[in-house]
Amino acid sequence: MTLDVAALRADTPGCAHVTHFNSAGAALQPRPVIDAVIDHVRLEAEIGGYAAAEERGDALDATYDSIGRLIGAGPDEIAVVGSATLAWDIAFYGLRFRPGDRVITTTTEYASNYIAYLHRARRDGIVVEVAPDTPAGDIDVAALAEMLEDGGVGLVSINHMPTQQGLINPAAAVGEVTRAAGVPFLLDACQTVGQVPIDVGAMGCDFLSATSRKYLRGPRGMGFLHVRPEMMERLDPLVLDLRGAVWTHPDRYEMRPDAKRFETWEMPMALKIGFGRAVEYALDVGIEAGWERVHALAHRLRSLLASLAGVTVTDRGTVLGGLVTFTVDGVAASDIKTELSRHRINVSTSTRASAVLDMDRRHLDEVVRASVHYFNTDEELERFVDHIERIAATHSG
Amino acid sequence: MTLDVAALRADTPGCAHVTHFNSAGAALQPRPVIDAVIDHVRLEAEIGGYAAAEERGDALDATYDSIGRLIGAGPDEIAVVGSATLAWDIAFYGLRFRPGDRVITTTTEYASNYIAYLHRARRDGIVVEVAPDTPAGDIDVAALAEMLEDGGVGLVSINHMPTQQGLINPAAAVGEVTRAAGVPFLLDACQTVGQVPIDVGAMGCDFLSATSRKYLRGPRGMGFLHVRPEMMERLDPLVLDLRGAVWTHPDRYEMRPDAKRFETWEMPMALKIGFGRAVEYALDVGIEAGWERVHALAHRLRSLLASLAGVTVTDRGTVLGGLVTFTVDGVAASDIKTELSRHRINVSTSTRASAVLDMDRRHLDEVVRASVHYFNTDEELERFVDHIERIAATHSG
Repeated sequence: MTLDVAALRADTPGCAHVTHFNSAGAALQPRPVIDAVIDHVRLEAEIGGYAAAEERGDALDATYDSIGRLIGAGPDEIAVVGSATLAWDIAFYGLRFRPGDRVITTTTEYASNYIAYLHRARRDGIVVEVAPDTPAGDIDVAALAEMLEDGGVGLVSINHMPTQQGLINPAAAVGEVTRAAGVPFLLDACQTVGQVPIDVGAMGCDFLSATSRKYLRGPRGMGFLHVRPEMMERLDPLVLDLRGAVWTHPDRYEMRPDAKRFETWEMPMALKIGFGRAVEYALDVGIEAGWERVHALAHRLRSLLASLAGVTVTDRGTVLGGLVTFTVDGVAASDIKTELSRHRINVSTSTRASAVLDMDRRHLDEVVRASVHYFNTDEELERFVDHIERIAATHSG
Repeated sequence: MTLDVAALRADTPGCAHVTHFNSAGAALQPRPVIDAVIDHVRLEAEIGGYAAAEERGDALDATYDSIGRLIGAGPDEIAVVGSATLAWDIAFYGLRFRPGDRVITTTTEYASNYIAYLHRARRDGIVVEVAPDTPAGDIDVAALAEMLEDGGVGLVSINHMPTQQGLINPAAAVGEVTRAAGVPFLLDACQTVGQVPIDVGAMGCDFLSATSRKYLRGPRGMGFLHVRPEMMERLDPLVLDLRGAVWTHPDRYEMRPDAKRFETWEMPMALKIGFGRAVEYALDVGIEAGWERVHALAHRLRSLLASLAGVTVTDRGTVLGGLVTFTVDGVAASDIKTELSRHRINVSTSTRASAVLDMDRRHLDEVVRASVHYFNTDEELERFVDHIERIAATHSG
């Protein structure tokens, strides 16, 4: 299955303006998504926000169906919320831990998640532990299984792909050992949903959080949480309002049975419709075909970069995804970002503070993040590498 | 100070399409707000979401300054989040209560808030108490002061204007007694910010939550929380990510000093810019002038409705705002809403479940909510009342 890249680019207004290597930050949106958002903003302006939501009720509902199809789940298992962070937090903060409960994560964990672990360590007395890596750089699943044998583990919580390098963690293998141990498994799939094929049943995760704006190419300010039905009652809602419960008696309420209990009532409806449209678009393009191309482009980019003098590719792992990270001797990552932006090339950077454990052990202070999507081309890669070669040469002299 | 209503209507595309009496649901947005949102959606599409946010960093920052000016606070005291509900929840769920701590609210309280009280009553053992009303229908501040004297009160939490009727509670008087008692005061100003002049210092509230979409005429899916600086450390962040804290060491983080510690990193930037623009617009129009007109229009609408046979106005209070509620004998409120929508007139309804305490004691099952804004006209009121008269007459025969 080959993608019609020219057609996909023609369908992406940003391709005419920028060379975008920041899909792991926020991807360029395709026209149908942009139109869906703007159409709803206009409809709200014309007939009012509530009337607009009523008129587009089917599209709002369809967002759950689309997400469900994307990850192999039912619509009732999905909560749509304002960000992947909030989605992740609903799972993490919703679990009831006792002091001393162990929470196991990974060496490459993202700051936002790790800050939350430390927050609950201080507040609730959980103990944060880090599973080791294999020599290749993946989470060491055998070592994790041993850690689980010691008991007292309240949660295994890992990222599927970290923020500071291209590793794709072996989530299904992790799911196998957490299920065997009867320990809940929270997967932060913020960087992978839309990029790689995901089936929550096959992966064995109990909670999966994701965002709209990255590989799904949807609007900023939307995310979702998948909750395996058996785990619904394990979560105490982070907050509860009349979206999640009905006030039935002066001293009583009834929670709704599905995952919408974790949502709150108010919602940016235009973005929610756009999010649903983005998921539909991803399904139409084909996740398998997209992943094949992302994987190949990223592989080529790493090879080209690795051949340059003074450039070090900093990705480690058995399977590497669309996020390509590197350093250039003698040049700060942020300066590279600024220099590239003068040529309308978008990249981002990861600093130490975004992944302290991983960056410290590798003595990295900052890396450039160049993330490719299926709409990128070989020509763009080559132009990009030419710029990096020039930057590296200028500073090595 | 008189408003140029014709100019304000010309600046509101929706005025050409609908007769909007649902500003307490979501108001019609003015053109500069709509344009600000769409412009940013387009900019994100063209140059990417991150580059767009960098380019519009000043506008994003200005949102805090504008909100601060609106409510008499500094920008560092404001957290901008995805809804008024989330803003309110950050304050309510952030307070550390011990079992037995009393939380005092009011008879007219909104379901979303009350569900949260009951949620924490079950989970954390707080005791929910309801202050009585005066005969006029306001919260009885003298009675509240007496309740505070008994001690053990962890929070006084009331709405400024409820969801199911036009009462504006005497917030400043409440603030006076809570300050005297040294008890935190959370004011849900979701329905009043943008409608009535608000100064958090003069009102004596410690936490104030509000939304963008109602009287401020901003986008759906945005709200803010004001936290009095002295109360900043009293709140345990509901969730904490790299927006609110910096991960400094493997086992440590540092929270930022200002109210942005209560935000999370990901944000619908287009809506945030639109929200700031809406606040600017409200300040330009003038809150005092707007309030004068809203008050007068609502007063006239109540008088006209009260003169109709079979129609009962259900608002109670010393000061009544722009939310006009009523019932028609023999006709369900939802049927009235449907009938009016055929004539492109927007209203909403409140059901029992949205305010159980208040609706039960008044034996109301559902009321029509017709909320006016300064852009409504006398002609619209008259046409509206003609329709209600016709509906009432049809069903009384």
